[in-house]
Amino acid sequence: MDWVKRSCDYTLTDGKSGFSINFAGMKFEEADLAALVPAFNKAVAGIADIEAGKIKNPDEQRKVTHFTDRMAYPASAEFAEVETFAAKIIAEGKFDAVVVNGIGGSALGPQLMQFAVNGPYWNELPKSKRKGLKIYFLDNTDSSGFADLLEVMEPEKTLHLVISKSGGTQETKNNMIAMEKFYASCNLNFADCAVAVTMKDSSLYQHAQADKWLKIFDMAESIGGRTSETAIVGHLPAALTGIDFGTFLAGACDMDIWTRTADFRNNPALFLAAMWYLAGNGKGDRNMVIVPYSDRLVLMSRYLQQLVMESLGKELDLAGNTVHQGLNVFGNKGGTDAHAFIQQLNDGRDDFFATFIEVLHDAKPLEINDGIAMGDYLHGFFEGLCAALRSKGRQTITIRIPQLTVYELGQIIALYERAVAAYAEFININAFHQPGVQAYKLAAKDVLALRGKVLETLAGKSGFTGNGQDFATLAGVPERAVEVASLLDKAALNDGIVSRKFDGKQWIYLVK
Amino acid sequence: MDWVKRSCDYTLTDGKSGFSINFAGMKFEEADLAALVPAFNKAVAGIADIEAGKIKNPDEQRKVTHFTDRMAYPASAEFAEVETFAAKIIAEGKFDAVVVNGIGGSALGPQLMQFAVNGPYWNELPKSKRKGLKIYFLDNTDSSGFADLLEVMEPEKTLHLVISKSGGTQETKNNMIAMEKFYASCNLNFADCAVAVTMKDSSLYQHAQADKWLKIFDMAESIGGRTSETAIVGHLPAALTGIDFGTFLAGACDMDIWTRTADFRNNPALFLAAMWYLAGNGKGDRNMVIVPYSDRLVLMSRYLQQLVMESLGKELDLAGNTVHQGLNVFGNKGGTDAHAFIQQLNDGRDDFFATFIEVLHDAKPLEINDGIAMGDYLHGFFEGLCAALRSKGRQTITIRIPQLTVYELGQIIALYERAVAAYAEFININAFHQPGVQAYKLAAKDVLALRGKVLETLAGKSGFTGNGQDFATLAGVPERAVEVASLLDKAALNDGIVSRKFDGKQWIYLVK
Repeated sequence: MDWVKRSCDYTLTDGKSGFSINFAGMKFEEADLAALVPAFNKAVAGIADIEAGKIKNPDEQRKVTHFTDRMAYPASAEFAEVETFAAKIIAEGKFDAVVVNGIGGSALGPQLMQFAVNGPYWNELPKSKRKGLKIYFLDNTDSSGFADLLEVMEPEKTLHLVISKSGGTQETKNNMIAMEKFYASCNLNFADCAVAVTMKDSSLYQHAQADKWLKIFDMAESIGGRTSETAIVGHLPAALTGIDFGTFLAGACDMDIWTRTADFRNNPALFLAAMWYLAGNGKGDRNMVIVPYSDRLVLMSRYLQQLVMESLGKELDLAGNTVHQGLNVFGNKGGTDAHAFIQQLNDGRDDFFATFIEVLHDAKPLEINDGIAMGDYLHGFFEGLCAALRSKGRQTITIRIPQLTVYELGQIIALYERAVAAYAEFININAFHQPGVQAYKLAAKDVLALRGKVLETLAGKSGFTGNGQDFATLAGVPERAVEVASLLDKAALNDGIVSRKFDGKQWIYLVK
Repeated sequence: MDWVKRSCDYTLTDGKSGFSINFAGMKFEEADLAALVPAFNKAVAGIADIEAGKIKNPDEQRKVTHFTDRMAYPASAEFAEVETFAAKIIAEGKFDAVVVNGIGGSALGPQLMQFAVNGPYWNELPKSKRKGLKIYFLDNTDSSGFADLLEVMEPEKTLHLVISKSGGTQETKNNMIAMEKFYASCNLNFADCAVAVTMKDSSLYQHAQADKWLKIFDMAESIGGRTSETAIVGHLPAALTGIDFGTFLAGACDMDIWTRTADFRNNPALFLAAMWYLAGNGKGDRNMVIVPYSDRLVLMSRYLQQLVMESLGKELDLAGNTVHQGLNVFGNKGGTDAHAFIQQLNDGRDDFFATFIEVLHDAKPLEINDGIAMGDYLHGFFEGLCAALRSKGRQTITIRIPQLTVYELGQIIALYERAVAAYAEFININAFHQPGVQAYKLAAKDVLALRGKVLETLAGKSGFTGNGQDFATLAGVPERAVEVASLLDKAALNDGIVSRKFDGKQWIYLVK
């Protein structure tokens, strides 16, 4: 009866909302929890410091205000301004679609929310069934994504949100510039359709102001991209697509209240962080597999992947020790995944813990046979998988919500945000910066500089031919022959300065 | 200059198609490859046995014919029949959309192909821009997915493919039954819109024949779901949506020819499998992170997750030893992911190897500034990330394709299929069965049986109240109190036989 007793002891339930989380399927004993008491205390104190406005992102000398800002947000003038703006846009009827141009934290949250609340076919619904605009995302710097959007976009009827805290995010800037050029090519004024969401006085702010964009919304410096879904970044796309953002915030804030509890036995965020810690030996030795039994939550794993991995994947701890921390997150949706990667979870490597999310209320009662509904089958598959995994000694956590609305979505996001903050306290890292992303941005700039150098070298060299090494030597960078060859490949395939031919062993380039 | 020399030595290129794969970013020496020669030989012999039609799925006593069937398929009567059927459907114009009802292998391949070839907004394109039907997927047994589809589906204009090899896949069966009921409720004849893809004489075959469905297509017993994309399962949805499946097969078959090469130095599948083996110590100790730099390939990681994890995640090897093998796969798309989980890859745990896919040709030339196009930025981000990861000693593989068409998609799928088969030979497992999925199906059936038992017990017990334990005891299964409570939760949230109230500590149920 261990399973029954453990489930009784280690299920935390909020009776009011019906949200529950069962940790009984994880491998831990009371002694393990007792040993973590100092860590729990550190986490409670650390998060209290965050909420008290202390600098908790020391590298960037920033406060971390996503937990506290959302408490005050619903009653603020800023909140009302977004609601009024969105209501006006929808009522006026000039715009029928909105394009969200943003990457990472500026895209994943709005994408998750759209899919979860408005469903997979929102854009295909007839206007009468939509309470707001259609929505599209530009979340990369890939010309194919841009080209695909142009195929369905009606420029006169499309509103553009350009979201970048610093204003300097290159991918977002690229899509903005390309879109401005496209509008100009249609003899349309982009500024009339453009809304900026950015920090006051950023380059984007200045650009939008100079060009007299339709609207500029401020973004707080102290809210990081991956925790921005409960702020303006989440609010504006939600409001424009008819989603009740106030209820989303209520869900998040109610979870915040619950997860401020000092006693870990009634604090699901502390308990969750403890499970991560114990399962992975404090080093992320087990992968976190996220499996919501809900078609509409298929993007949850992608959202949590960013929240967890960008926050916890760090080289140094706060004392400057090299720690190479991290916690891998992946998953899709159940029961579908049982026909994909569950085979390995059940029989293969015991290197993970699975987190299931079950939605109790069926969106539609669909009787299949003998009084068994489609939802009962889904439940059966869910419980069956849990039982199968338990019988193999695999570890599981189960979150259960009564229904899937924007309220429960707020609860789940707030729970994971706080668990991440708590876990960061356990392992003593800064969860709120991303130095690895900065390193990568610099490296990318360097590649573009190399491109400029190579092109410069080749000017007037029509007829020059050779392999990558020859071209790299010509440009004075023989040690970078691989990158030079790859720049030449790129040029050759895009009507650039060279063509290429394979000589049986390698590519030979010819300057046109 | 190690990087230059290694790239030279360890890049395999097919000059004809322009497909290349660079292994130089992986940590291995010549001695490691030499030590693998017996494994390479075993793999070559094992795959030759597969292609010679020997029984290579001993548990199910089945041949494994996906490599060989696709060679003969384009010239077959079956191929012509699919093409003719699809052309007729499109030409007649009665149907404007197709719903693919299938799960796992019957959904992931078609989804990947649609997104990669027809793009993310295919269904939203005006009819004049579509060369075929709109396409939807029912790939679960979730009533919300079904309900969402009904919101956009025009039943008279929708063709339904019901895909299940055995005909017994419960999720697919549920969607079929629910759809039959829906059509009946609209006074429409589902059979007129229904196409079955299944094994001859399966229960689905018999049902479709008895009800006089529009068409029945045969499915080979010897092709597993996760390797069925190059057979009828991939063909029918492709043909109905205007995709040139013959070219897809040409890509796959050309890759098959290349990867039959006995010398591993010119066999990208053998080399790839060797990299997996060396990186993960033959036990999958490193996660495979798939990052295509292409918006249209965002589903590639999900597809490979199934192909790799369901094939390689096994408890026993072929000699019956307990091995708990596996190889975790996750990923999304670059450069987007650099703003998500790349922080951890760069700075955090060194427990992965990344596989990048670069598409050289830009879908659209979009100059951003100073002669630098959007695609040049994407290339810069890609190379920059590679460089950043290399500088941290992280391991990478890079696949480069000249453009993304259905041909290159065929190459990539065939490459991974053969690498999986080779790796399975290295570690001596059956890559073609899925006993863990069967175990889970049985466990799910057991939950539904428990549900029946509980409901039976409660008949006539109006007014009975108690917690989960009380109900489980009443039903004579006190050891299953957790599952009984969860069945009661499900019932309570769906107007079932009970209601529930939280007493401050636990849920108390009341029989209505």
